[in-house]
Amino acid sequence: MSFELTKPFLESIREGVADGRDSVVQELLSELHPADIAAIIDRLSDEEAVYVFRLLEAEEAADVLLDLDDDTREDMLASLTSKEIAEDVLEHIDSDDAADVMSELPEEKQREVIALLEDQEQREDLEELLTYPEGTAGALMAKELVQVRTDWSVARAIVEMRRQAKEVDDVYTVYVVDREDRLEGVLPLKELLFSSESTRTLIKHICDTDVVSVKADTDVEEVVSLMKKYDAVVLPVVDDLDRLIGRITVDDVMDVMTEEATEDYQLASGISEDVDATDSPIVQLRARLPWLLIGLAGGILSSQVIAQYEEALRIDPTMAFFMPLIAATAGNVGVQSSAIVVQGLAAGTLDGVNLFARLWKELRVAVLTALICGVLIFLVNLALQQSQALSYTVSIALFTVILTAAMFGTLIPLLLEQLKIDPAMATGPFVTTLNDISGLLTYFTVAHLMYEVFP
Amino acid sequence: MSFELTKPFLESIREGVADGRDSVVQELLSELHPADIAAIIDRLSDEEAVYVFRLLEAEEAADVLLDLDDDTREDMLASLTSKEIAEDVLEHIDSDDAADVMSELPEEKQREVIALLEDQEQREDLEELLTYPEGTAGALMAKELVQVRTDWSVARAIVEMRRQAKEVDDVYTVYVVDREDRLEGVLPLKELLFSSESTRTLIKHICDTDVVSVKADTDVEEVVSLMKKYDAVVLPVVDDLDRLIGRITVDDVMDVMTEEATEDYQLASGISEDVDATDSPIVQLRARLPWLLIGLAGGILSSQVIAQYEEALRIDPTMAFFMPLIAATAGNVGVQSSAIVVQGLAAGTLDGVNLFARLWKELRVAVLTALICGVLIFLVNLALQQSQALSYTVSIALFTVILTAAMFGTLIPLLLEQLKIDPAMATGPFVTTLNDISGLLTYFTVAHLMYEVFP
Repeated sequence: MSFELTKPFLESIREGVADGRDSVVQELLSELHPADIAAIIDRLSDEEAVYVFRLLEAEEAADVLLDLDDDTREDMLASLTSKEIAEDVLEHIDSDDAADVMSELPEEKQREVIALLEDQEQREDLEELLTYPEGTAGALMAKELVQVRTDWSVARAIVEMRRQAKEVDDVYTVYVVDREDRLEGVLPLKELLFSSESTRTLIKHICDTDVVSVKADTDVEEVVSLMKKYDAVVLPVVDDLDRLIGRITVDDVMDVMTEEATEDYQLASGISEDVDATDSPIVQLRARLPWLLIGLAGGILSSQVIAQYEEALRIDPTMAFFMPLIAATAGNVGVQSSAIVVQGLAAGTLDGVNLFARLWKELRVAVLTALICGVLIFLVNLALQQSQALSYTVSIALFTVILTAAMFGTLIPLLLEQLKIDPAMATGPFVTTLNDISGLLTYFTVAHLMYEVFP
Repeated sequence: MSFELTKPFLESIREGVADGRDSVVQELLSELHPADIAAIIDRLSDEEAVYVFRLLEAEEAADVLLDLDDDTREDMLASLTSKEIAEDVLEHIDSDDAADVMSELPEEKQREVIALLEDQEQREDLEELLTYPEGTAGALMAKELVQVRTDWSVARAIVEMRRQAKEVDDVYTVYVVDREDRLEGVLPLKELLFSSESTRTLIKHICDTDVVSVKADTDVEEVVSLMKKYDAVVLPVVDDLDRLIGRITVDDVMDVMTEEATEDYQLASGISEDVDATDSPIVQLRARLPWLLIGLAGGILSSQVIAQYEEALRIDPTMAFFMPLIAATAGNVGVQSSAIVVQGLAAGTLDGVNLFARLWKELRVAVLTALICGVLIFLVNLALQQSQALSYTVSIALFTVILTAAMFGTLIPLLLEQLKIDPAMATGPFVTTLNDISGLLTYFTVAHLMYEVFP
């Protein structure tokens, strides 16, 4: 059963903390999963949170720490001494999680904590993991894994495996390496469970050599797509000489997927950092204001464009009526075109499709759209009994604007990708603002021409 | 190693197909993973695709079919007879995948295929799975699992488990049930591997009773969040009497996560159906046009709003200069506010936070934003030497518009959630259009007042 956090339960915890009745709090938390305890601590004040955290047993505390919100974890780590982090936290968690925790500490504290680790292997593993740049497979992998050698018998492998498995939390796959530690294959756990403990069958005869691996410097996005493609629960990581150096598990990949999706969505919504509803107004402001300022700058530019037509507007103010329609449509079409490219790039469906093929397809969509919208708005303007000049202006400008916005919308994310900037940026306010302005320019240019045709 | 699809490789396949040299094609595909073969078939023409598909062995063909793009799979299924689907596909895949395949068939073909299945248990499983509504745990689960009884000895459990495991592709967890099939716990595979084959130790003594399960009617979003929360690779599904009826594996959940993220992103970008860059112009048009028409309707409404101020515009056309700035800022702020609520709803961080607390926080962000933007634009207008009336109008209108857009942006996704409509809709063109119009109304109202103050 999963646990549902209720207000009365939270209140009981708070009261227990306020009255210093430690055993009551411990009793309340005793049956809960670390993730549930973390959810409770996330809701407490800083002092209450640290108090409850210190009541947990070391092993449980370590797991709870990993499940806390980023902000709460940061506070908690700041309140722990280097010795506590080394002994009570890092000793009890896998190397990948340990590296995550370390990367949240200031550099000086990192050095202190590493020096305090007793196990030399753990120290070396952690130092190695911290060398991989963020966003690579190396930074995501754990060092803990179970490996056997190709030239071992099944019987020997089982003995070795049992020994190694004690150190590894979740064993899904046993890796098979040669004498030089080069990855040769995998032994699904099921396989080993059902093979008899023969001393004559060698591992190389029963292992599956068809194994997908990644390099330490493989991009995490590539790792995500390989895991999804091959429905893998765990992927081995090798170095440049094909030697097995770690493994990446699916839970870490799910976190990356969530972060990526969040990032794209936030860029599309004009939010520049990872913020959520619980962040303070100042943090939210910092993430939101830059985009609004870009929009503002665009608006000022627009005002200058319109100012060029001040006289024309004085003579015929109806020209102003359809400015919002033109600008909004340009923005909407541009975002749609960009979104389709952004998704194609992410899913890899645009790999190998050349630029002109892509633009040509988009152009066909855009021409259809522009025709439908242009004719519709012409009919509406007829019904509204607008002047001929205005009716033609709006329809022709709308037609042109839809075509240009679609081309911009397609080209800009591809350009961003080339410049190594996240193409999802294209679906945010920046490109919309560009399209707004170019839409207005088109509108007034067309209007200018039309008013010469229909004076 | 993962396989990289190259153009020359694809050409060799095409040539092999054109020349009818089946053995060449089979040879080329022989070492590849089903997911890689599927990626190749996705790139072929309909006829080539069916040709290559029929060259595959039944078991491999079934796996390849599951990995195809939705569109290609649809075509492929249409080209297969009911008998082929029953015998060559469904016999070789897990029940959850079988149910997915079935749900893509027309109803009549579904009945034909089910009648053709030879194994009665498979027929019943499939019929059961098809009864669960889309979007529930039941529709996502597989019936294949390994289960042992609390009152069995370890030795007996191992024998039974080996027998059952033959039918299950990937065994991660062994479920423990009581005599009435009620889920009592789990036996991690590692545990069983390392426990000696005792005839005296009972399963109930070594199983882990702390197990998270879901009901068949649990929403898939809830399943995703539980799996992420508990870092689970597989979740058991129980019926209303707590009897174990299936399991959901992480690969299916990853697919759901991707679909959800795509859906949110597409709604935010104004695309209503699941389309991608490879879809035909007509399909894309169908997904995009509705949103543009909403934008157009909004634009027409805006034109009517502005038309009310035709005389004022004739007297002072500078009033038109800042219309795009006001409308764009209203749109941008509204989308930001909505995006934060949408993410909070999805992540559950807004659970238990009351409406007024949420609005109050957003109001504080909005007031800060509005002050900064209002003052900035006032300074810019001073520098541009705009009239006093216009400068005050723009700043006051901008201030008001940011506050209202932030409140709308916060309320609308919450309202949509109440109405059981996807709140991500709020970050799309619909709400932006509403904010555009209300922005213009505010602007002209303020302008009207200002021109009375500064005649």
